Amino acid sequence: MTTTPPPDFDRETAVHAQPGAPGSYDADLPGAWKVGQGINGGVLLAVTARALSAELGTAHGDRPDGHPDPLSVSAYYLSAAAAGPAVVRTETVRRGNSVSHGGAELLQQEEPGAGPVARLRVLAAYGNLDDQAGSVLADAGLTAAKPPALAPVEQCIGSDAAPAEFRAESPMLGRADLRLDPSCVGWAVGAPSGKGEMKGWFRLPEDRAPDPLLLLMAVDVLPPASFDLGMIGWAPTLELTAHVRARPAPGWLRVVHTTRNVAGGYMEEDAEIWDSADRLVAQSRQLARLPRRS
Amino acid sequence: MTTTPPPDFDRETAVHAQPGAPGSYDADLPGAWKVGQGINGGVLLAVTARALSAELGTAHGDRPDGHPDPLSVSAYYLSAAAAGPAVVRTETVRRGNSVSHGGAELLQQEEPGAGPVARLRVLAAYGNLDDQAGSVLADAGLTAAKPPALAPVEQCIGSDAAPAEFRAESPMLGRADLRLDPSCVGWAVGAPSGKGEMKGWFRLPEDRAPDPLLLLMAVDVLPPASFDLGMIGWAPTLELTAHVRARPAPGWLRVVHTTRNVAGGYMEEDAEIWDSADRLVAQSRQLARLPRRS
Repeated sequence: MTTTPPPDFDRETAVHAQPGAPGSYDADLPGAWKVGQGINGGVLLAVTARALSAELGTAHGDRPDGHPDPLSVSAYYLSAAAAGPAVVRTETVRRGNSVSHGGAELLQQEEPGAGPVARLRVLAAYGNLDDQAGSVLADAGLTAAKPPALAPVEQCIGSDAAPAEFRAESPMLGRADLRLDPSCVGWAVGAPSGKGEMKGWFRLPEDRAPDPLLLLMAVDVLPPASFDLGMIGWAPTLELTAHVRARPAPGWLRVVHTTRNVAGGYMEEDAEIWDSADRLVAQSRQLARLPRRS
Repeated sequence: MTTTPPPDFDRETAVHAQPGAPGSYDADLPGAWKVGQGINGGVLLAVTARALSAELGTAHGDRPDGHPDPLSVSAYYLSAAAAGPAVVRTETVRRGNSVSHGGAELLQQEEPGAGPVARLRVLAAYGNLDDQAGSVLADAGLTAAKPPALAPVEQCIGSDAAPAEFRAESPMLGRADLRLDPSCVGWAVGAPSGKGEMKGWFRLPEDRAPDPLLLLMAVDVLPPASFDLGMIGWAPTLELTAHVRARPAPGWLRVVHTTRNVAGGYMEEDAEIWDSADRLVAQSRQLARLPRRS
C-alpha cells in the first residue's frame, strides 16, 4: 500500500545534478500539474528555471551566492510534456557583475531507446533581487500600474465550481488554490464578459510562501483570457517571457491575465502578479494559439 | 574620393552565408544606426532575424518557402555592438508543420586574434504570415486594442528638433524618419508629460515598404518611454521579445511605447506598431535598465 505524499511544490519541481554531466539536471515532471494534453507551462518553466538557478547561483566574483534569481526568462514551447522523468540541460552564456545569462532545454524520452525530445527551450537573465530592493527609484512613485480590483477572497470562485469536463482534463485545478473574480467566470455558464480578462487570487494549498520560482509558475496559472471571450479550449503557448521585478511578500498573490489582440489565429496574453504588499512583482507576456471557437 | 551610397536598410542589414560554415552568416553592422554607445537594438535584432529567416525559409515538407517570417523573437543583449563586421551563428532547433524554431547569436571580434564576443542571443519561432491572413478569427472583431491617437504627420516633431547633444551621440536620428507626437516631446525642453508614453510616425527615409524585418527594428526605434518621465539617458535593453502579428501594409507605421512599472532600477517598455490599414502588426515588450536621473 502506497501513501500519497502531501503536496509540495518544491519537491514537484526539484532538480538533481547529474553526476558526471556538468550543467545537466534530472527532474520528475509532476502529474498533479497536468492540464489538457500536457503539464502546466508555468510548472515546466519553474523546473527549468530552478536548474538555471542552480547553475548561475554559484559563487562568482565577490558574490558568494552568484545570481540565483530569474530577472527575465523567455521560453519557447516545442512539444507537450508528460508526467515523469525529464532532463534539463543548461548552458552558461555569460557570468557578469550584476547579471548572468543562461540557456536551457527541457528534454524527455518519448520511447525507450529513442533520442530525447525537447519540450522547452529557454534563454534567461539572472541576478539577485536583493540588489534591487534598495533602489531609490523603487520608491520614486513612477509605477503607474495599479493593483487589480478583485472581490475579497471569500467572494471569489474556487476551482471546485469549474465545469466537470474541464476538471477531468485538468488535474492542476485540484493543485492550485485559485479563486477567480466573479466578473470573469461567466464563461462557465455560457455568458463570458467579452472583455478578455481573467483575474483572481492564487496560492499553493500547502501555503508555501511565494518566491521567484512560484511567480514563474503563477504567470500561467489562470484559465486563458480567451475563455472570457467565449473561446473555451486549450490555448497552447508558443512563447512566454516573464520578468520578475521583486521578491514577493508572503501571502496571497493577485494574478491578472488580459488580451487585447486576438487576430490571425493567435492572441497575446499579458499577466501581472501583485503581492500582498501591493507591489507588481512579476509581468509576463505570451503568444498563444487560439482555440477553435466552441 | 568615395561617394556615400544612398541609405538602404536591406543593404545595411544584409547577411551573407559563410562558405563551408553551415548556419553561419557574415554581416556588417551599420554605423549609421549608432545610438549612444552601441548600435540600435532593433537593427541588431533585424540583422539576426534575417539570418534566421535564411535558415528557416528554405523548403520544408510541402512548403517550398518554409517558414521565412518571424512570429516571435526573444533577444537578450549581452554587450554593446560596434559598427563593422559581425557574424550570426544560427541553430535550427526544430522544423515543424506550421512553425519552425531557431536560435542565434550575433558575435563580433573586439580585438584582432581574440575570440569573438557575443552581442546578442536569440530564440525565435518562425512561420509564414500568409497562413494567418485568411483566418476567420482575424475578422472576428475580437481585437480590443485601438490605434494610437496621433497628431497628423505634418504636425509632429522630426528629429531635427532633438537637442544637439542627443543628436551628436545618436547618428540613427538622421537615419530614421521619425515624427514624435507633440504630447510626448516635452522632455526636450525639460517638461516631460510624466505619463511614460512615447509615440509617433515612423518610416525609412528611402521610403522602403515595411515588412516583418522592419517591424523588428521599429519596436525599438523611439526614444525610451522613460524620457517622458524626465529620466533622460540611455536605457539599455536587457531583454526584448517581439511578436509579429501580420504582414504590414505599405506606408507610415505608427509606433507607441509605454511603461507602467518603473521600479528597482528597471522598467518594462511595451511597444505596439500599427500599419496604414489600422492593424496592430507587431507588439513587443522589453526589460530595460533605467538611466540614472538627470
